Amino acid sequence: MTPTSQTTNDQSSSAASHAASQHTELTNEEIFSAHAGGKLSVELSRPIETQHDLSVAYTPGVAQVSRAIAEDPDMAQTHTWASRLVAVVSDGSAVLGLGDIGPSASLPVMEGKCALFKSFSGLNSIPLVLNTNDVDEIVETVVRMSPSFGAVNLEDISAPRCFEIEQRLIEALDIPVFHDDQHGTAVVVLAALTNAAKLTGKALSSLRVVITGAGAAGIAVAEILLSAGVTDIVLTDSRGIIHRDRDDLSTYKTEYAGKTNPRGVTGGTAEALDGADVFIGVSSAKVPEADIASMNAGGIVFALSNPDPEVHPDVAARTAAVVATGRSDYPNQINNVLAFPGIFRGALDAGARRIGAQMKLAAAEAIAELVGDDLRADYIVPSPLDPRVAPAVADAVQRAAQPEG
Amino acid sequence: MTPTSQTTNDQSSSAASHAASQHTELTNEEIFSAHAGGKLSVELSRPIETQHDLSVAYTPGVAQVSRAIAEDPDMAQTHTWASRLVAVVSDGSAVLGLGDIGPSASLPVMEGKCALFKSFSGLNSIPLVLNTNDVDEIVETVVRMSPSFGAVNLEDISAPRCFEIEQRLIEALDIPVFHDDQHGTAVVVLAALTNAAKLTGKALSSLRVVITGAGAAGIAVAEILLSAGVTDIVLTDSRGIIHRDRDDLSTYKTEYAGKTNPRGVTGGTAEALDGADVFIGVSSAKVPEADIASMNAGGIVFALSNPDPEVHPDVAARTAAVVATGRSDYPNQINNVLAFPGIFRGALDAGARRIGAQMKLAAAEAIAELVGDDLRADYIVPSPLDPRVAPAVADAVQRAAQPEG
Repeated sequence: MTPTSQTTNDQSSSAASHAASQHTELTNEEIFSAHAGGKLSVELSRPIETQHDLSVAYTPGVAQVSRAIAEDPDMAQTHTWASRLVAVVSDGSAVLGLGDIGPSASLPVMEGKCALFKSFSGLNSIPLVLNTNDVDEIVETVVRMSPSFGAVNLEDISAPRCFEIEQRLIEALDIPVFHDDQHGTAVVVLAALTNAAKLTGKALSSLRVVITGAGAAGIAVAEILLSAGVTDIVLTDSRGIIHRDRDDLSTYKTEYAGKTNPRGVTGGTAEALDGADVFIGVSSAKVPEADIASMNAGGIVFALSNPDPEVHPDVAARTAAVVATGRSDYPNQINNVLAFPGIFRGALDAGARRIGAQMKLAAAEAIAELVGDDLRADYIVPSPLDPRVAPAVADAVQRAAQPEG
Repeated sequence: MTPTSQTTNDQSSSAASHAASQHTELTNEEIFSAHAGGKLSVELSRPIETQHDLSVAYTPGVAQVSRAIAEDPDMAQTHTWASRLVAVVSDGSAVLGLGDIGPSASLPVMEGKCALFKSFSGLNSIPLVLNTNDVDEIVETVVRMSPSFGAVNLEDISAPRCFEIEQRLIEALDIPVFHDDQHGTAVVVLAALTNAAKLTGKALSSLRVVITGAGAAGIAVAEILLSAGVTDIVLTDSRGIIHRDRDDLSTYKTEYAGKTNPRGVTGGTAEALDGADVFIGVSSAKVPEADIASMNAGGIVFALSNPDPEVHPDVAARTAAVVATGRSDYPNQINNVLAFPGIFRGALDAGARRIGAQMKLAAAEAIAELVGDDLRADYIVPSPLDPRVAPAVADAVQRAAQPEG
C-alpha cells in the first residue's frame, strides 16, 4: 500500500528566495518507485561463466585460499572482501525524525547509507538490522558477526544506549566502530562552525555555544567542540539547561554537566541563548524567533532538525549572520555524507583499529578547508555532492591515523 | 604470504581419458589472483549523482518509505532488498575437506557461494561468518539479524550441531532456512540416483543403498532417499555400520538407526557393500577396490568426497555401471550448485516460509528430467553450468511450494 502522492517538503515554497538552494520537489510516486525492490545488489568481482571459472572461484580452487587463511590469518585482509566491508548496524530505535520504528522499517535508511558509502567512497557495505534493543544482545551479536566485515557504522540507535554500545564494541573489537549519528554529525558541525567563526571574525575558543538536544548528536557535538578548543558550551535537554545541580541526569549527561556550562547557567533555551554566539539545534524542539534574536551580533544558527528545523532558516536569517540546516533545499546543508564516507575510507586505508579524536578533527579540518576563498555566509561547507570531499577527508583521516595506530 | 605454485588436482593426469571431462589445471597464482580483494561487491540499483537523487534515495525521501513500512510491515517485502536476500551463514566448522578452520578462513567459500547465488539464480546474498560454535549463540545471532534478509543458507557447519541449528531456526523464523550441505547434496544425489537407477533398469524401491558418512550430508541423503521410496539404506560412520544395537550413537544417528538398516546388517563398509546396488560416499574414508567389486552387477558408485573421492572413479568404473564424483574434471559431477540457486529462487518466488520435503523432491525431479533422452552412464546429471537448471528447479520448487504454503 503506497501512501497517496504529496510533496515531502512542506516549506518548500519559501526556499525559492535562496539563490544557493537546489530545490526539487519529491513526489511519493517517485520516492516509492526508486525504493522498489531495495536499493542495493551484490555483484561478482569476476564473472563465473565457464567450468574453469567455477573451479577457480569455488571448489576446488577456493580450498587453497581458505587453507592459506587458516595458516596465516592476515591473508583474510587481502583475499576476502571483509577488510574493506562496512557493516551498517541499526536496531531502528532512533530513525531520522521517525523515532523507534524498528529494524524492518529502518532498513530503507540503512540501504541508503550503504548506497552513499559506495557512491562517495567506493566502499562496500551491508545493512544489518537487529530485532533487539538490548545493549548486551546488540553488542554480542555484532561481536559474533565481526569476522564478516572490517568496520562497523552504528546508525540510528537511540541514546543513551548508543553510547554504551559504541564504547563496548570499540573495546571488544579491533576494527573501527563509529556511531555516525554522533561523530559524523559532530565532524560536519565542527567544519561548519570553523568556517562560520572565521567568517564572523570570532575565535572558536571565545564562542558561547548553545546545543539544544543532549542525545547522540548533542553529546558528540559537545565532545568534538571541547576537543577543538571551544570552552563555553551550554547543553539543553527536554527539561532545560544541563548543569551540575540537576539530579535527573543520565550517566552520560552527568559527565557532560561536568564538562560544559562553565558559567553555571540555569533555565531553558531562552536563558541559554541570551547573549550566545552559536545555536546548534539537534533536537526537534522549536525555538522562538525572539530567542534567536537575543543572541549576540554576528550570531551563528545551525538548526539541524530534519525535515523541520528548530527555527525556519528564513526567520533565523533576520538576526543571525550565518544560518545552516540539515536540508538540501537551503544553503549550508550540514550533511553527514560530507564526513562518514571519507572517514571510513581513510580509516580502512590506514588499517586503523580505532577512529580516534585526532582523526575526527582532521576530517573536520579537511571539510572546512575545501571551502577555501569561496567562504561566504551561504557557503560555509562544501556541497554533499562535491567530489573533492570524500577523497580529501579520507586522505586527512589516513594521515591522522598513523600516530594513533 | 601466497603458497608456492602447484596444481591443485593431483590426480588430474588420469582424467584425460574421460571424453566428458572438462579438465583445466588450476595454478595457485591464478587462484589467489582471482580471490584477491574478495569476490563480491555491493552496488547501487540506481546511481546517486544529483542532489535530487540524494534526496530521493536518502533524506528526506527515504523517511516516507520507512514510515510506510512502520505502518504496513508488508511493505518491507517490496521496498527493501531483504525479502530477496539470502544470508549465507557459517561458523567455519566443517569447511570443504578442511574441517574446522574458523569463520575468517571460511569466508572465501561463503563469498564463492554468494557469487554462485547471483550467477545462477540472480539472487542477492551476503556471507555472514560467526566466531562462535555454540548452538544457542548461533541460533540467537541469526534470529536477531533476521529482519535483514529473506532466507538463510546454512553452510559448512559441523554435525550434529547443524541439525539442531537448522531445526531451531526453522521453528524460530518464518523465512526459508536450508542447510545446503545437507539438503542441497541430498537433492542432487537423488536426482543422480533417479537417473542412474533408470539407466541400470532398477527401481528406487528395490535398491540396496550404502551411505558412508553419517554427518550432515549422509543423514540428509538418507532422509531424502527414504522420502523418495528407497527402503534399504545402510549408513556407516567412522565406527562402522549404524544399527539399533549400537550404544555409541548421537541423537540423530539413533533416529536413523531406527529408520535405516532394515536387514540389521553389522560390521564395516566391506560388510555393508557386499551385495549392495549403490554406494554413496560422503565421508573422506577410502574404500578399497575389492569392496566396490563386491557390489551387485550394475553397481552405482557416487564417490563424493572432494577433492579426493573415496574410490578413484577410474578404479570404480572397472566394476560399477555408473560412477559419479564431486569433481569437475570427471563426468557426472554431483554439485550442489545444481540445486541451491533454484531452490532458494523458487522458495522466494513463491513467498514460502519453509523449504519442505515436497519442494526438495520436486527439485531433484526437475534436475533429473533435464537429462532426458541424453541419459547415459557418463551423463546422469546436467552440467553445473547448464543454464536450464536453475530456472527449471526454481519453477518446480515454486509449484511444489504452493500446497505447503
